Amino acid sequence: MSALSLILLSAMTCYSLAFSNAPPPNIIIMLMDDMGWGDLGVFGQPSKETPNLDAMAAQGMLLPNFYTANPLCSPSRAALLTGRLPVRNGFYTTNAHARNAYTPQEIVGGISKDEILLPQMLKKRGYVSKIVGKWHLGHRPQYLPLEHGFDEWFGAPNCHFGPYNNSLRPNIPVYNNSEMLGRYYEEFKINRKTGESNLTQIYLMEGLDFIFRQTKAQRPFFLYWAPDATHAPVYASKRFLGKSQRGRYGDAVMELDYSVGQILSWLRSLSIDHNTFVFFTSDNGAAVMSGPNESGSNGPFLCGKETTFEGGMREPAIAWWPGHIKEGTVSFTLGSVMDLFTTSLTLASISAPNDRTLDGLDLTPVLLNGSDTFQNRPIFFYRGNELMAVRLGQYKAHYWTWSNSWEELKSGINFCPGQEVPGVTTHDQKEHTLQPIIFHLGRDPGEKYPLSVLTKEYQDVLSRISAVVEQHKKTLVPGIPQLNMCDVAVMNWAPAGCEKLRKCLKVPKSQPWKCDWPH
Amino acid sequence: MSALSLILLSAMTCYSLAFSNAPPPNIIIMLMDDMGWGDLGVFGQPSKETPNLDAMAAQGMLLPNFYTANPLCSPSRAALLTGRLPVRNGFYTTNAHARNAYTPQEIVGGISKDEILLPQMLKKRGYVSKIVGKWHLGHRPQYLPLEHGFDEWFGAPNCHFGPYNNSLRPNIPVYNNSEMLGRYYEEFKINRKTGESNLTQIYLMEGLDFIFRQTKAQRPFFLYWAPDATHAPVYASKRFLGKSQRGRYGDAVMELDYSVGQILSWLRSLSIDHNTFVFFTSDNGAAVMSGPNESGSNGPFLCGKETTFEGGMREPAIAWWPGHIKEGTVSFTLGSVMDLFTTSLTLASISAPNDRTLDGLDLTPVLLNGSDTFQNRPIFFYRGNELMAVRLGQYKAHYWTWSNSWEELKSGINFCPGQEVPGVTTHDQKEHTLQPIIFHLGRDPGEKYPLSVLTKEYQDVLSRISAVVEQHKKTLVPGIPQLNMCDVAVMNWAPAGCEKLRKCLKVPKSQPWKCDWPH
Repeated sequence: MSALSLILLSAMTCYSLAFSNAPPPNIIIMLMDDMGWGDLGVFGQPSKETPNLDAMAAQGMLLPNFYTANPLCSPSRAALLTGRLPVRNGFYTTNAHARNAYTPQEIVGGISKDEILLPQMLKKRGYVSKIVGKWHLGHRPQYLPLEHGFDEWFGAPNCHFGPYNNSLRPNIPVYNNSEMLGRYYEEFKINRKTGESNLTQIYLMEGLDFIFRQTKAQRPFFLYWAPDATHAPVYASKRFLGKSQRGRYGDAVMELDYSVGQILSWLRSLSIDHNTFVFFTSDNGAAVMSGPNESGSNGPFLCGKETTFEGGMREPAIAWWPGHIKEGTVSFTLGSVMDLFTTSLTLASISAPNDRTLDGLDLTPVLLNGSDTFQNRPIFFYRGNELMAVRLGQYKAHYWTWSNSWEELKSGINFCPGQEVPGVTTHDQKEHTLQPIIFHLGRDPGEKYPLSVLTKEYQDVLSRISAVVEQHKKTLVPGIPQLNMCDVAVMNWAPAGCEKLRKCLKVPKSQPWKCDWPH
Repeated sequence: MSALSLILLSAMTCYSLAFSNAPPPNIIIMLMDDMGWGDLGVFGQPSKETPNLDAMAAQGMLLPNFYTANPLCSPSRAALLTGRLPVRNGFYTTNAHARNAYTPQEIVGGISKDEILLPQMLKKRGYVSKIVGKWHLGHRPQYLPLEHGFDEWFGAPNCHFGPYNNSLRPNIPVYNNSEMLGRYYEEFKINRKTGESNLTQIYLMEGLDFIFRQTKAQRPFFLYWAPDATHAPVYASKRFLGKSQRGRYGDAVMELDYSVGQILSWLRSLSIDHNTFVFFTSDNGAAVMSGPNESGSNGPFLCGKETTFEGGMREPAIAWWPGHIKEGTVSFTLGSVMDLFTTSLTLASISAPNDRTLDGLDLTPVLLNGSDTFQNRPIFFYRGNELMAVRLGQYKAHYWTWSNSWEELKSGINFCPGQEVPGVTTHDQKEHTLQPIIFHLGRDPGEKYPLSVLTKEYQDVLSRISAVVEQHKKTLVPGIPQLNMCDVAVMNWAPAGCEKLRKCLKVPKSQPWKCDWPH
């Protein structure tokens, strides 16, 4: 290396947020679908099949205490993009007590126009934003990404499961920007038998292409890369099928890991790695109810998706920004997907909106300076509008416990297969408000050994957590619930662009009903 | 670096086993006590508190599929040092069906003179051998380490638990070579209340001193470093107490991690790192029945110590030998502690004994050349003399299932806390010989989803495993069980050296009985 390039390198390394004239960094958020904490080699997956993600961690910062805002996809994604808890941004239901809700095809609602999404904010500093992959914030026209700040979109509004035949329910459309290009299982094949699909490759190409175009145009960009290959039915392209020790789910993980590697490598090739902040995480815990072929691992944690135990809420998380985030670091800060909103604004030198409560914190002191400021912040675990649990420091207090109902369990749906903690993984909704069940997650990350209520430790923690909960509840103003009403008429029968493709289906008569959220 | 030192370095790197005149490498086996697979950062411990072990893995080879030979300490250690299954080397009981047995103070037996131990073999090539820490192969005079090939010993013959007052039962002696130096809880303090003890520091110093002396004398050495700080009651020295996020158990892990780092650093300082093979592992899975303060983590695996589920048998394992083992590699080979016997002989260019069956394989092709030869070897899981399960490739077939008895469970002893797989973690001994329960450990490392017996996969695997089991059983010649008889008279009342110290206790009258092994 020449002396000149050394000097240039130093200069680049010293590039700092303080220079507000410097171009703001590009931002890439990679959000996986139903991927569990324990699916990455660096987080303990025995198969160690994620060399690119493990390398990303080695070059950046690992965050083992990072949480989603809800154990289900839509509310989690809404929280990420708004920086606010689902109970504030409306991505919840009040149809029944403590129920998870999302945006299936029948859902009438979606993200409110009153919410401000990250790409809307970033636009103020000239960012161009693209979402690649799954949206899940409502599929009716007014709820789609380009109506909420994104400049580009390639992907689908809903999950890619059933009915696979476009008859009783329309197959999910795949959009290019504001018009559909085709549908899953039709133009966008997913072979149900073999699990073969080249969708992840398409999503990768869409991401690389976007990065290239913005780099060439010298415009700062925000890429929200949200592939869904690890959501059941899981899929992978031909070259990855059968490659994993873990079966088809592992094949999907290997392809995503490969794709992450390709994206990071692309940033290096374009010499924008020192100016691009990348964050990798997942929308909720592994869907362990789907069984070993179709779901991932939550490592040592309890239960998974749909629950407010650690398996449902703790997410794999890696931050990467060469020259800014110290390589090979581990931060035990308590983090949340909602922090990505706030942190991104700081990175872009944009003030956060001051007309609403934000739940996300600015993690830049942690990421850039190794601060441990947020080790004692509270993390709130909701199901619907019920505060199920709260983490504060190493402690987690459960005010309500529930996995799923006895009826569901008897029908074969198990949110905690192979796991049972008496009085904790309950099949009735159990209230513990007066005497919450408290775990020390450092000693007991698996939430197996409740602290005895007779100990001083319990009493000390309880008084600290109670104060936090009281304050939170006192000041909480719930948003209007958007996920209460369903209607067959709102399904993806005739998305924009269907005419050109001759793919419009007949819209049935409107028959709204209160959605049934069983868990 | 000068050209000359580059040449020297290359020459050293090319140093090969083929040069039989070259000095044989030193061998260090670091065997932890009740440490679980999930206790190391590199294996997924959320607290990431093992930087030295993680670095050791980054500089060497990680083996995520490494097993002990028994889910309990004594038989595991006997297997390591003999290269043979406990059912062959006599470290088992026939007092009841499928029971774990070990060497408490009452045990009459110990390692047979007919067994050949690793240090006895290594002596043929001039190795000097030392054991530091826990022996556990019998505490009567004829069973002690110096009678079985070790040249030096600093440590204790038994576990360091109870009764802590030297009255009804003598406290465990600590030996220096062939004479006791004192006793646990007396000269060698372990503060039961605070968990403070400087024993790990002493064991570290004993190890470093031995390494230094043999290096100076230019003699090849074998160090069997077997500290017991992670066995309940767990302990750590003052500077580590309270340091871990995980409580006292984590403090002990941090001190052991620190010690491993010190030993590796010492090898570098003495410039013998390129000539010293180091292997780190544990004797059995984490003792999860001891609760969160006194036990570790088995990561995503089922149950723990005392069971033949993965949590009891799969061990953390790292091989390290700069210049010989490629850095940063992961081998998915199926390995066993018994392989350490055979592998060490190959490293020392010593032929294995040919008058007995060895269960250990020579792992040098895996370690030195990255071979995947042994991915399909069988791993046998015994409890007593019952073959409970067999792993072949990614599959594991359970012929018998048992955690512990209903009586024990009701008394509060739980080998699988928070875990319950119906029909698998049984509290009756369940035979499945005709139709074993089979898991695919790649897709399902947690042994939660048995393969359906109706599938072709099940039938294919069964026929392959059945052939292996039949062959194994047909050729197995069990050794004479050494762990059947107990007697109060054999306890550590008056170990060698007690006279000088005036620490001899009165030996009670002999009252032999058949030991009761409850699980």
